[in-house]
Amino acid sequence: MNSTFFDFELITTDDATGARLGRITTPHSTVDTPAFMPVGTLGAVKGILPDQLRDVGVQMVLSNTYHLALRPGAGVVEELGGLHGFMDWSGPILTDSGGFQVFSLAQLMKLDDAGVVFKSHIDGSTLELTPESAMRIQEQLGADIIMCLDECPALPCEREKMIDAVDRTTRWAARCRDAHARGDQALFGIVQGGVDAGMRERSASGLLPLEFPGYAIGGLSVGESPVDMYRTLDFTVPMLPSDKPRYLMGVGRPEDLVEAVCRGVDMFDCVMPTRNGRNASAFTSAGRVRLRNKAHQRDERPLDPECECLVCRRYSRAYLRHLFIAGEMLGPILVSLHNIAFYQRLLRDLRTAIAAGEVTMFRSDRLARWSKSA
Amino acid sequence: MNSTFFDFELITTDDATGARLGRITTPHSTVDTPAFMPVGTLGAVKGILPDQLRDVGVQMVLSNTYHLALRPGAGVVEELGGLHGFMDWSGPILTDSGGFQVFSLAQLMKLDDAGVVFKSHIDGSTLELTPESAMRIQEQLGADIIMCLDECPALPCEREKMIDAVDRTTRWAARCRDAHARGDQALFGIVQGGVDAGMRERSASGLLPLEFPGYAIGGLSVGESPVDMYRTLDFTVPMLPSDKPRYLMGVGRPEDLVEAVCRGVDMFDCVMPTRNGRNASAFTSAGRVRLRNKAHQRDERPLDPECECLVCRRYSRAYLRHLFIAGEMLGPILVSLHNIAFYQRLLRDLRTAIAAGEVTMFRSDRLARWSKSA
Repeated sequence: MNSTFFDFELITTDDATGARLGRITTPHSTVDTPAFMPVGTLGAVKGILPDQLRDVGVQMVLSNTYHLALRPGAGVVEELGGLHGFMDWSGPILTDSGGFQVFSLAQLMKLDDAGVVFKSHIDGSTLELTPESAMRIQEQLGADIIMCLDECPALPCEREKMIDAVDRTTRWAARCRDAHARGDQALFGIVQGGVDAGMRERSASGLLPLEFPGYAIGGLSVGESPVDMYRTLDFTVPMLPSDKPRYLMGVGRPEDLVEAVCRGVDMFDCVMPTRNGRNASAFTSAGRVRLRNKAHQRDERPLDPECECLVCRRYSRAYLRHLFIAGEMLGPILVSLHNIAFYQRLLRDLRTAIAAGEVTMFRSDRLARWSKSA
Repeated sequence: MNSTFFDFELITTDDATGARLGRITTPHSTVDTPAFMPVGTLGAVKGILPDQLRDVGVQMVLSNTYHLALRPGAGVVEELGGLHGFMDWSGPILTDSGGFQVFSLAQLMKLDDAGVVFKSHIDGSTLELTPESAMRIQEQLGADIIMCLDECPALPCEREKMIDAVDRTTRWAARCRDAHARGDQALFGIVQGGVDAGMRERSASGLLPLEFPGYAIGGLSVGESPVDMYRTLDFTVPMLPSDKPRYLMGVGRPEDLVEAVCRGVDMFDCVMPTRNGRNASAFTSAGRVRLRNKAHQRDERPLDPECECLVCRRYSRAYLRHLFIAGEMLGPILVSLHNIAFYQRLLRDLRTAIAAGEVTMFRSDRLARWSKSA
């Protein structure tokens, strides 16, 4: 990793909460943190064009190595100019290692120190993912930030199995670091250990000496309660270096983002804005709006009167509801777009609140508003 | 119909072919003719935002009265500002009468001079459409151009049945004219009569005295051969007034548009650009491209090197194919958008050719190019 290609500037840290304002520099421009990355699993944020993402303030997107390696194949993406050219996204991209999907979607055939052998969820073919191949594939995809291969056990998980997973994740991380050859990509380590402080400590103490330019917290948002997630962040975030970005993988709901930012997390990704959008569930300043509800049949109001996105400026709830009832694909498109805009605005407002030293007030205000209507 | 709200200016007519260059003025801006209207059946062109339509040159869209009357109901659309406000399309809109869908989609219960009783294809409920209700519904929807209720029998059709349909269409047209109260909408008549010159003559001679501001040719593109369609245009178009726009309903393929323009038709609508787009079939300067074909797996070329649309400027065929193979909705969106752009460019090029007196050459050039690759 050539450090001229990657930088994290910590602009300010909120005294009361630990919330941080920062800026990540990548070969494809900068990202203001805390930041939320919409998910473009297969090289496309479902239903949304890159220009539309940019218009609502998205600076960075995530794409999934496992899915792209199966379809169309990392070699095809590489030939077509890497992910940036392939999907026409000129901003920063992060790819995961593929490990999480191997453990959650595929049928595991063998797991040992060498790597993991699994069956594709698409065609049942047998494939292998090792720390070395995870690096090779992510180099072919060409994202700005790439992730170490990690073992992510399902929760609850017995102690011995968790120790194995944590230690294997550390050994794999060292091999990833050694195998990673591209100088224009930042390789992040992933701290595992479930919701147990001792396990997180064991993971962090193994990974920190490897001096990755950023650290992720993996293994959360896998079914544990929000209380457990926040508690885990309370003891895990302080284990991470303060001069490097902290990325909470796969999280989450707007309230989770606010809580995690107030615990010092800098980066997020989640499918919720798009998945909920496709299911007619909208995030708004006043909480969730379910558009299939008959109450919206003649509802002239915009989804969110406080939102300035194209969807809220132009369309009534009644029209959006009609699109879903009629099975028109424009419904999923418009509500996904609004939801992404909502997330981007939330993160922008969080950054403003941190800069102004008002993040504690911001948190209580938002949580109160959202809980009223939930 | 208050004529200040609607005007057709015939700019030039090509001597060799009869192709016409013109301009329609409506309460929502003008439309250059010959013009192609993308179809927004349910108040949305499938998967495409109004801004995207405008960006590729669309000036006018069509929406379907039958579908909107069933869902969400014409009253709901009216309450929400009419179709223009409902779907956020500030340009001209045309609605059909609902007749065509009643005859093609619904289960007919009764058809007589009063009107037609049918079962909804959505929920099986019994509904009635009369000339008077077709006018009332289209007034509620609020399009700029609306259509008379007509009877459109399936082809082939025996002579007695066709005479009945033609004469009933004429009687209904008179009732539509009498019932139509809104002064800011232009009501068009529809000439029926299948592929028979005598029947078309019978229909036209009944409708012309009613002095509609525009005339449509209905009952084509319902399964007859292209040769029959062109032959029918050869004898039907000259029956229509030259100072009023001529609209060929539901047509069609790019070659059909070229042939019909060269026979003096001014307006078209068809679902082909969007329906084919959703099925990975693209229209290009060199003919059809089927994106699911494995030949495009690593194909770095744009869909159409001669096309300037966003899709052709930004994406490879390999990426578009990947989206379809992976089931990503961005595939249908992007290829629909390109296909609409292709149709708009075709009509723009036709207008340029007519203005330059080169439409005969244009026709032979295009038909030769497209047939080579078909």
